[in-house]
Amino acid sequence: MTQPESPSDTKSTHPLIESSRVEGTRVYAPSGKHIGTIHHLIIEKVSGRVVYAVMTFGGFLRIGTKAHTVPWEKLAYDPTLGGYRTNITPAELTDAPVGDEKLWRDRKREREMRDHWNVPPHYGT
Amino acid sequence: MTQPESPSDTKSTHPLIESSRVEGTRVYAPSGKHIGTIHHLIIEKVSGRVVYAVMTFGGFLRIGTKAHTVPWEKLAYDPTLGGYRTNITPAELTDAPVGDEKLWRDRKREREMRDHWNVPPHYGT
Repeated sequence: MTQPESPSDTKSTHPLIESSRVEGTRVYAPSGKHIGTIHHLIIEKVSGRVVYAVMTFGGFLRIGTKAHTVPWEKLAYDPTLGGYRTNITPAELTDAPVGDEKLWRDRKREREMRDHWNVPPHYGT
Repeated sequence: MTQPESPSDTKSTHPLIESSRVEGTRVYAPSGKHIGTIHHLIIEKVSGRVVYAVMTFGGFLRIGTKAHTVPWEKLAYDPTLGGYRTNITPAELTDAPVGDEKLWRDRKREREMRDHWNVPPHYGT
């Protein structure tokens, strides 16, 4: 089904997006199925690098719409979809510690979460 | 004068900040004088790198509060200030083309603006 064109940056093909418009950017499974939505980003103040996406996985195997802190490395932008693809599996989300939306504020929990996702420490840790 | 402690991320010493809280982060001259405020950031969708800060220079030599698109390279985070230092001068701001807040959407104007600030092309250009 063809989507109607939208003036929203989240669906435009422009390579840049306003931080204030990131909310609502869609996240897709490798199959192309819409599995979640970015709520906001977590940015490293010094480098200006996005480190985490706080996102919801709405109705994804009945996990509900709780917000999770997901390392940026787990997302890959797909211009044809106008959103991000991820290989995150339901098992990885139901397994502890997956991270709530405020997890990144706690250094210890942040380290555990990065270990869980098997991603290296970010610049600020 | 000592500032009272604030729960806002913009003043915290945590190395990360929520994109939704970037609004209001202060920008200072090399002297430490508060000269402007970040309104929001412009992010490269693929790399997750901040490319521009859209910011206002309030009352800076009576330039008023018009929003400008400023390359991220022009800002350096200073944890002691809880904000960014910049070496942008009044002459650079009054000289054309300095960039309004929507300039980054137009590839030609974006290139002229980057030439003006003497910064290299970003990944998406």
